[in-house]
Amino acid sequence: MRIGFMQTRPRFGDAEANIRAIERGLAKVREATIVLPELCTTGYLFESRRELRALAEPLDGPSVTRLRALARSQRLTLCFGLAERAGRRVYNSAVSVTAAGRRYVYRKAHLFDREKLFFDRAEPRFEPFRSGTKLGVMICFDWIFPETCRTLALAGARVILHPSNLVLPYCQTAMVTRALENRVFTVTCNRVGSESRAGATLRFTGQSRIVDPRGKVLAQAGARGESLQVVRIDPGQAADKRMTSRNDLFRDRRPRFYRLQ
Amino acid sequence: MRIGFMQTRPRFGDAEANIRAIERGLAKVREATIVLPELCTTGYLFESRRELRALAEPLDGPSVTRLRALARSQRLTLCFGLAERAGRRVYNSAVSVTAAGRRYVYRKAHLFDREKLFFDRAEPRFEPFRSGTKLGVMICFDWIFPETCRTLALAGARVILHPSNLVLPYCQTAMVTRALENRVFTVTCNRVGSESRAGATLRFTGQSRIVDPRGKVLAQAGARGESLQVVRIDPGQAADKRMTSRNDLFRDRRPRFYRLQ
Repeated sequence: MRIGFMQTRPRFGDAEANIRAIERGLAKVREATIVLPELCTTGYLFESRRELRALAEPLDGPSVTRLRALARSQRLTLCFGLAERAGRRVYNSAVSVTAAGRRYVYRKAHLFDREKLFFDRAEPRFEPFRSGTKLGVMICFDWIFPETCRTLALAGARVILHPSNLVLPYCQTAMVTRALENRVFTVTCNRVGSESRAGATLRFTGQSRIVDPRGKVLAQAGARGESLQVVRIDPGQAADKRMTSRNDLFRDRRPRFYRLQ
Repeated sequence: MRIGFMQTRPRFGDAEANIRAIERGLAKVREATIVLPELCTTGYLFESRRELRALAEPLDGPSVTRLRALARSQRLTLCFGLAERAGRRVYNSAVSVTAAGRRYVYRKAHLFDREKLFFDRAEPRFEPFRSGTKLGVMICFDWIFPETCRTLALAGARVILHPSNLVLPYCQTAMVTRALENRVFTVTCNRVGSESRAGATLRFTGQSRIVDPRGKVLAQAGARGESLQVVRIDPGQAADKRMTSRNDLFRDRRPRFYRLQ
């Protein structure tokens, strides 16, 4: 199967322009699973809960509808970040839409910094979904909690889709560890550019990357430019948890002795 | 407090020479916590269970006795790998001895490759002990299971002592992730040199390193030579799990949603 990322530079508050840029960027891509950045339709740095609510969209709103149509017509699986309005609540979500028309929603478990001011705390479902293979989803800061990727991998995810808006420098390197320790593929899609709002400036660090179950970086974007990269993988490699002929990284675990509450 | 490592080149099967080299190397060190490599008194590549049993020592044997005396006389905490004979069983252990004369034993939870042929599988105790601050111990391959370091950190360990005999290239980099995700200090002490026995050759990769809770490498040894490095740290930094003013990496965990069995 083919997996990839499209590292974009969202324009704050302009979903229409951001969706159009995604449609243009993906115009020639068929039959692939593509990850887009966290909050890629709205931008990131909200000034208030009110502003966030106004820019958030429900799951049947225009952004999901457009990207769902794109997935169907080009036989893609798309995983993209969305400010999701659900009644009175607003979640930092990742929506996955498949060529078959199915939709899968993950709401970020671990909110970062000012996200806590404006987004609601979700009851996350760490459950992989099927599209070509078993795909698990986590969002940006979720990476630093090893339990996130571990839970998804133990539930059978072979590829981790990881929409991000990274501002710190650690994650991209750490994804090698996440891939290795769980013997999964990881696709981290970060954004580029900066936002200056609410008296703060954030520079997003790009460097989206795809890592294989042996820790090899299969694709890597730069820190500043937009970038679309797609690689061919055998997801079966992630079913094999052996590190040596005598070590299976899942069977070798000693859960009876771990204390993780 | 002062923490460090002594990266050595053990001579296979010659505990007397290996202990003497440790005594010589540490002759001028006082009042520090020093980590030595895994199996640093015996070497690593055993040809048989019989050979291992013959070289293994009980906890009141000469190696522990000598290093315990060294710890007392120079006011050190020493953490070193030992092939531990316990009745009919042999464990890949790390023994820690303190200036106060106390002894703490950890038996490796996750055996690597051929270790499974000769060592017994332990019932590991992931429990930090106190000497200056709360110290947690793990051995070599334990690193790849994020639950090991996590369990120790959740139990209060501020510094992870990590005797190793690494032959793969991933661990040293990954320890930055382990330190960051748990906000702890880590001291990985690897060995150097190679062993050719039982039809196999292993080259040990050195590069022992100390990492702080923010992922900064405080000390780093080369890949080939022996090396003694000691740094001064404030273990209190590891008590503070905040990553931003709004993120505490332990309080932000969502254990109710993790499925780790």
